[in-house]
Amino acid sequence: MRNVTSETLTDLLLNLSGPDTDPRVQEVLGALVKHLHAFATEVGLTHSEWRKGLELLTRAGEISDAERNEFVLLSDVLGLSSLVDMINSPDDCTSSSVLGPFHVLGAPQLPVGGDLIGDNAGQQVVVQGVVRDQAGAPIEGAVIELWQTADNGLYSGQDATQPDYNLRMAMTTGADGRYAVSTIRPTPYLVPTDGPAGDILNATGRHAWRPSHLHFIIEAAGYRSLVTEVFPSDDPYLDEDAVFGVREDLVMEFQPGTRAALPADIEARDRLDEGFSSVEFDFVLPPA
Amino acid sequence: MRNVTSETLTDLLLNLSGPDTDPRVQEVLGALVKHLHAFATEVGLTHSEWRKGLELLTRAGEISDAERNEFVLLSDVLGLSSLVDMINSPDDCTSSSVLGPFHVLGAPQLPVGGDLIGDNAGQQVVVQGVVRDQAGAPIEGAVIELWQTADNGLYSGQDATQPDYNLRMAMTTGADGRYAVSTIRPTPYLVPTDGPAGDILNATGRHAWRPSHLHFIIEAAGYRSLVTEVFPSDDPYLDEDAVFGVREDLVMEFQPGTRAALPADIEARDRLDEGFSSVEFDFVLPPA
Repeated sequence: MRNVTSETLTDLLLNLSGPDTDPRVQEVLGALVKHLHAFATEVGLTHSEWRKGLELLTRAGEISDAERNEFVLLSDVLGLSSLVDMINSPDDCTSSSVLGPFHVLGAPQLPVGGDLIGDNAGQQVVVQGVVRDQAGAPIEGAVIELWQTADNGLYSGQDATQPDYNLRMAMTTGADGRYAVSTIRPTPYLVPTDGPAGDILNATGRHAWRPSHLHFIIEAAGYRSLVTEVFPSDDPYLDEDAVFGVREDLVMEFQPGTRAALPADIEARDRLDEGFSSVEFDFVLPPA
Repeated sequence: MRNVTSETLTDLLLNLSGPDTDPRVQEVLGALVKHLHAFATEVGLTHSEWRKGLELLTRAGEISDAERNEFVLLSDVLGLSSLVDMINSPDDCTSSSVLGPFHVLGAPQLPVGGDLIGDNAGQQVVVQGVVRDQAGAPIEGAVIELWQTADNGLYSGQDATQPDYNLRMAMTTGADGRYAVSTIRPTPYLVPTDGPAGDILNATGRHAWRPSHLHFIIEAAGYRSLVTEVFPSDDPYLDEDAVFGVREDLVMEFQPGTRAALPADIEARDRLDEGFSSVEFDFVLPPA
C-alpha cells in the first residue's frame, strides 16, 4: 500500500479487516473511520490542529479518575450523549436522558413513601407517580433509583459535608406500580469547566449551566432499563441545558402541596414544611 | 430547547456558539460535531456501544504516560495520522509521514559523516544525501534529526540495555546541503497491542507490524519542517504497514557499499564491515 493516497486510504483501511471480524464491529468501526477521515479532509486538518486534538484527549485522560470521567463530559457537551438517548428512545415511552457522572451503586433501599429530606435544607417536595407499560398497566417490582443535588448544587460524593448516599435512594414498586418519596428541590449547577470540555464551552462562548433535575434509573424484569432525568418546569436553564438533556416529556410541574391530600404512606407527611410542593410524574417503560 | 430532536440537535448545538468564537474553531468543531452525530445516527449507536467507546478512550488515558501516548497510536491505526500527513504534503516535495511516539528531544549533534554504529550489532549502512528546495538547490543550515530501532527492534528509551540516545542524532548541513551518517539497518517491529489500539487491530484481524524505517525531522529557516520516515525497499511489511506510513517516494534502496567509493568525511569508513550497505536519499522541503 505504498501507493496509498488521501483518496484511497479510507477504503484500503476498511478492506484490511479479516474474515472473522464481527459484522457489527465492522459496521460501527467502518462508519467511525469514514466520518473521522471525512472530517479531517473537509476542514484540511493541519498537524498543529491534529496535535491540539490529541492533547485535548490526553488531558481528558489525565483529569479523569474513579469519580470523574471527562470523556463522558465531552460526549455530553458535544451532544453525543443526548443524541444516543434520542436514537434509542421509543416514541411512546418516557424519554431517556443523560446518566451523567454522579451515579453511584449501592444507594439505600427506601419503602414507597420514604423520606430523603432528613437534615437537608431546601424547598421540600413530594414526588410520586406510577411506573407503567406502554398499554398503561402498572409494573410491579420495578426498581427506581433516584439521585440529585443538595441545596448547594453538589451531589454527595462531590461534597465532604454531606453524609454518604445523601439524597440517593432505591425503591421497589408494589402491585400498583407506585413510587413516592419526599425530598428537596434540586438546584441548577455548572458542569466542570477546568478540563477540555470546559475549554470547548469557553472557546465557543457557551455557558456550563445545567437546569436542576432529578436523576432516575428504572429497571423492571421484561422491560428495557430507563436512564433519565426530570426537570422542574420553572427552571431558568430549561431551554439552555449545556448537555442537551431536556425533553418536553421530562418536564415536571411543581404544585403547591397540602398535607391532607397526601397518601398515608408518605413517611414525612406530618413534619413537612408549610409551603411544600407536590409533583406527579409517571414513567412508561418499553418492553425488553 | 426542550423540543430538540435527533434531527435538530446538530444545528441547534452549532448555533449556540457566541459571536466571539474564532472562525476556524467554529469550522473545525462544527465539522467534528456534524460527523460525530452523523456517525451515531447512521449506525444507530446503542447505549452499550457508546459506553464501550467511552471505556476505550478511558483506558487509552489510563495506559498513556510520558513515554507512551495511546491516543497517538489510535490515530495511527485508524489512519488519521497518515491522512493528516497526506493532506499537508505538497506534491513535489518529500512526503511527510508519522512522527510516532519514540522521538525524544536533545539528541547529540554529529558532524556530517558522523557515526551512530558504535557498539550496535546489525547490518551496517551509510546513509547520505542532500537537503534541497523545490528548485533543486541545496539548503545550508538544515538541521536533520534521525532516530531508529536497534537490531532488537526497540528504540533507546524503550530498552534499558541501550545507552541514552543510542541511534539518535542531530546534524547540520553545510553549504552543499549534504548529510551523511553511518548507522545500522532498522528492523520491523510490532506497535503495542496491550491497549485499545491493539484491541481494534485484534477485533478486525489486522496485524501490528510496521516495516523497518529511519525516522527523520528536517528543519531549516525559511522552509516548512518535514517529519517523515524512510523505508528499505526490501522490507516484507512495506505494503502492510499497520499505521499506513509508507509512500512511494519514501522508499530507499540498499546498495552494496565499497569503502573506496565513500567520501573522506565518513568517520567510520575504515572500520565498516565488509558487506556494508549504502543508501542515497535526498529530501525536498517546501517553503515556509
